[in-house]
Amino acid sequence: MKVTVLVGSKSDLEIAEKVRTRLAEFGVPCDVHVASAHRTPDKVDRLVRDPETDVFVAMAGLSAALPGAVAARTLKPVIGVPLHRGLGLDSLLSVVQMPPGVPVAAVGLDAAENAALLATAILALKFPELTGALERYRAKWREEPAPTPGSGS
Amino acid sequence: MKVTVLVGSKSDLEIAEKVRTRLAEFGVPCDVHVASAHRTPDKVDRLVRDPETDVFVAMAGLSAALPGAVAARTLKPVIGVPLHRGLGLDSLLSVVQMPPGVPVAAVGLDAAENAALLATAILALKFPELTGALERYRAKWREEPAPTPGSGS
Amino acid sequence: MKVTVLVGSKSDLEIAEKVRTRLAEFGVPCDVHVASAHRTPDKVDRLVRDPETDVFVAMAGLSAALPGAVAARTLKPVIGVPLHRGLGLDSLLSVVQMPPGVPVAAVGLDAAENAALLATAILALKFPELTGALERYRAKWREEPAPTPGSGS
Amino acid sequence: MKVTVLVGSKSDLEIAEKVRTRLAEFGVPCDVHVASAHRTPDKVDRLVRDPETDVFVAMAGLSAALPGAVAARTLKPVIGVPLHRGLGLDSLLSVVQMPPGVPVAAVGLDAAENAALLATAILALKFPELTGALERYRAKWREEPAPTPGSGS
Amino acid sequence: MKVTVLVGSKSDLEIAEKVRTRLAEFGVPCDVHVASAHRTPDKVDRLVRDPETDVFVAMAGLSAALPGAVAARTLKPVIGVPLHRGLGLDSLLSVVQMPPGVPVAAVGLDAAENAALLATAILALKFPELTGALERYRAKWREEPAPTPGSGS
Amino acid sequence: MKVTVLVGSKSDLEIAEKVRTRLAEFGVPCDVHVASAHRTPDKVDRLVRDPETDVFVAMAGLSAALPGAVAARTLKPVIGVPLHRGLGLDSLLSVVQMPPGVPVAAVGLDAAENAALLATAILALKFPELTGALERYRAKWREEPAPTPGSGS
Amino acid sequence: MKVTVLVGSKSDLEIAEKVRTRLAEFGVPCDVHVASAHRTPDKVDRLVRDPETDVFVAMAGLSAALPGAVAARTLKPVIGVPLHRGLGLDSLLSVVQMPPGVPVAAVGLDAAENAALLATAILALKFPELTGALERYRAKWREEPAPTPGSGS
Amino acid sequence: MKVTVLVGSKSDLEIAEKVRTRLAEFGVPCDVHVASAHRTPDKVDRLVRDPETDVFVAMAGLSAALPGAVAARTLKPVIGVPLHRGLGLDSLLSVVQMPPGVPVAAVGLDAAENAALLATAILALKFPELTGALERYRAKWREEPAPTPGSGS
Repeated sequence: MKVTVLVGSKSDLEIAEKVRTRLAEFGVPCDVHVASAHRTPDKVDRLVRDPETDVFVAMAGLSAALPGAVAARTLKPVIGVPLHRGLGLDSLLSVVQMPPGVPVAAVGLDAAENAALLATAILALKFPELTGALERYRAKWREEPAPTPGSGS
Repeated sequence: MKVTVLVGSKSDLEIAEKVRTRLAEFGVPCDVHVASAHRTPDKVDRLVRDPETDVFVAMAGLSAALPGAVAARTLKPVIGVPLHRGLGLDSLLSVVQMPPGVPVAAVGLDAAENAALLATAILALKFPELTGALERYRAKWREEPAPTPGSGS
Repeated sequence: MKVTVLVGSKSDLEIAEKVRTRLAEFGVPCDVHVASAHRTPDKVDRLVRDPETDVFVAMAGLSAALPGAVAARTLKPVIGVPLHRGLGLDSLLSVVQMPPGVPVAAVGLDAAENAALLATAILALKFPELTGALERYRAKWREEPAPTPGSGS
Repeated sequence: MKVTVLVGSKSDLEIAEKVRTRLAEFGVPCDVHVASAHRTPDKVDRLVRDPETDVFVAMAGLSAALPGAVAARTLKPVIGVPLHRGLGLDSLLSVVQMPPGVPVAAVGLDAAENAALLATAILALKFPELTGALERYRAKWREEPAPTPGSGS
Repeated sequence: MKVTVLVGSKSDLEIAEKVRTRLAEFGVPCDVHVASAHRTPDKVDRLVRDPETDVFVAMAGLSAALPGAVAARTLKPVIGVPLHRGLGLDSLLSVVQMPPGVPVAAVGLDAAENAALLATAILALKFPELTGALERYRAKWREEPAPTPGSGS
Repeated sequence: MKVTVLVGSKSDLEIAEKVRTRLAEFGVPCDVHVASAHRTPDKVDRLVRDPETDVFVAMAGLSAALPGAVAARTLKPVIGVPLHRGLGLDSLLSVVQMPPGVPVAAVGLDAAENAALLATAILALKFPELTGALERYRAKWREEPAPTPGSGS
Repeated sequence: MKVTVLVGSKSDLEIAEKVRTRLAEFGVPCDVHVASAHRTPDKVDRLVRDPETDVFVAMAGLSAALPGAVAARTLKPVIGVPLHRGLGLDSLLSVVQMPPGVPVAAVGLDAAENAALLATAILALKFPELTGALERYRAKWREEPAPTPGSGS
Repeated sequence: MKVTVLVGSKSDLEIAEKVRTRLAEFGVPCDVHVASAHRTPDKVDRLVRDPETDVFVAMAGLSAALPGAVAARTLKPVIGVPLHRGLGLDSLLSVVQMPPGVPVAAVGLDAAENAALLATAILALKFPELTGALERYRAKWREEPAPTPGSGS
């Protein structure tokens, strides 16, 4: 069981670490790699072929090609996290408006928390032992939402 | 193994059927229900508690609350499909910009094809026999993309 | 006579208090509750069934489901206040572009002042004694607009 | 008990009639007037002073000044309906982003149905006999949503 | 010869003063008034009837009704200045997307400088003695643009 | 007394004729020219130097440079009409968001009617005999708005 | 001397042919290939390594990854053409908002004509014999603009 | 071999210098000039006729006419850099949505780095000795992206 998080540059590692931290709380192993569809496609290729990884998380700003690049290389689920760098709408539309055949599971702008939750929910189908952790998270969350950006709903 | 697709009204059944048709080609059983977070929350509650369902797909236009309503009621993966009814941007933002704690896997506007593919990719973690179908789809897709809306990439 | 204000998390209480403060000046009792359509739907259910409440105010950011969730559960008037958390346009469109059958009275982004005024105007139909307070407010406002965000018009 | 609907020109009468038709089904008397804040402000003034009217509905496209013009002239509740004529976003933002002191209850683009529902919900506070009609509407709506624009939710 | 500038509240006086200052440099008398289409329509009416005024400048943020309100009351030229208060796009669209019959000469967001230049250009048709001042301004501007917001072009 | 209308290509002549027709009804002479800042800057230069012209109207779609090009070459008032060709928002923002020093009087998308009205209002400062025509137009308009695009207000 | 045009699917060949037709008129050889960064990255790799090609044109709609994928694989100039398939703004932002290090020369939505012109202008640096063709085109264009979408300027 | 960078005012020189600095690292001579299509068209004319220049870079905010003005005056390649001054979307759309016949190679908002890279890629067709510098840049960039705005991809 493993989640692999890809970010395109070192400067995005901080938000990637938020995904790892949350996953660690769920007991989900997570690797974070700096790998870019544009700069280091071979590294992306290699990471994508990792048989240990069950779910990929790809995070990028501006014209965010990384989530789609990963989704085109694997048949495993790929979660895309648009990062708010330019207009916000640029990365959001780049991640969510994928052409047919390249499914990306988009979450909101800078939504590291939801990326980790979605990855765990996907993993829990295969690893039912994760359900307990998700239930505990959700029970606590019902008391007060996660501290990360956004407001209650 | 089952995918449950929820749409808010009969008038949206046609696009829901596209999800079912594609899933059927993959050998994934799929139920389609008209159920609305606003109109028939009890039906949503009941459907969401269905232990047979592994992945939910919720499709809605305008201020699209259904994907989030499903995601708040289950710990299973929820795919949200914004439907282009009003401005387009309204349902797209409503589905993708979820607050932390309510993870929705958003695909693009009217992206029935990608919703089916993403659901199958998620299921394939648990049901590896689906991988063959996905591989055959992808091999064929490499020759020519899916006929549904959008262009190549 | 009572207005019930719902916000999804503690972090939104400050702007909810602006509604309460203004309503208090009009002599309108107002309860503020942290209750979320996603996190605590049972609490929303319970609050919505409160027979004392005449008007609801629901405030949320991002994909703002709370106003619609309240409007779907009650036949009483529901005022929705989109909070500027992400792009601004996300919560605004989520609150105003409601599907038919779920009427929400949307005010502007972070418009606590107008939410209180609208609630009082609605109440004044039934409780004409409020009209005097509204008239005094408006007479004073004609001299100089409310200090809250925005500019003259 | 009366709702007064204002539209700025004859060419908008068709959508105003949708409001009247729905209100008639609820037993709510409704007058429809062509009156424009820009063209016939005196007519707006006169209509707004009508003591019989409990709720106003103002519908306009483009830079939609009519809802605010009515709201500035009355202390009664004013529902604003942005009409999709130019970009859509123009009338929507003009109706919802009102400055503090001029509360308008905005509904969605071309949302005649929700305008009628909201007006009736407001009236039902004072005229509880309307509650039965709203309950019957909602019971039927739970079976299938209103046929007007938009999709289920 | 006179330009009358209207802003809706005291808090917008600072940007109105920029118009006055620039006009003073051109030798154009300019009155600045706080007057609101919503709050003080009678004051707007009175100011608009001022026979001394040749050109009006109306400045407002959010749903900016003031420029249209002035334009509907006079046959003289009306310059509208959208102020960047909420989303920016809200006041911009409210000022520029006027319905036919209510001509407003829109300038850019917060464009006090261009409002003064446009007013002077309009006045110079009738008062050719202003042409010299405009020519001197333009000659100097050709050396280096005005210091107010924006960049060269 | 003359208004000169510039459009960038023959394909835009139809909407330019709407300006001329309306101006003719006001007794305002109007020349329409195909002239492009990009294609035929010398023709623009020549037209802009025409001493007979009092007001210029420049109409363009997409990245609409023509209004600004005219405004940079003359000290006379320039009315810009964004044409809805691509996204709509492209020409609208290109015409209205002019840098300081290049004042353009923007009207709405495809707003030929308001361009003619604004031009006449500007001319009426110098040629008071036009006031009667404007008053007759407005009196008639008060009965029913202009038939061109948009709705009442 | 060669331009290579890449489109992601057969359904986009028609607009690619417009580029080829225009280039043919300039005497520029042009190959058109269906090749997708997502579907057939190896074909993209192979085409990009073609030593004969001087300039690449990549056309795509929705989240348009192809231009960036080509630009990341070559040091030759890459022109990106966003195709208007979904919202328009999605492909436009995806093509133009490239991260630093991956330069794409974006032209407008569906702007096949400008893509061909830009490619030829780039080639003319190295192949000055093309200048004559460009000059003849421009001379003719000065008479009347190209017939493809958009209006004069 | 020379790149000429044009910015409309002194206040934009800082970002123009980023282009020059990067080009200098590639060994590409670069002149930076303050020249405005609106303010100093003769200077633009003169600079554009410079036979030494191979590629132009034009940078502007708001309604950014400079790139198109240069492109209309030369047959050489013109790179347009929209500067984020007002809404961001204003200059971006003004630069990218050029009418047919005026090709501008748009890069992203404030994308000085990509403008320099694109200029060098274009020059390298004619001056193959630049290829080495681009290859070294790219090799280094593959290790870590450029430090200028944006994130990895």
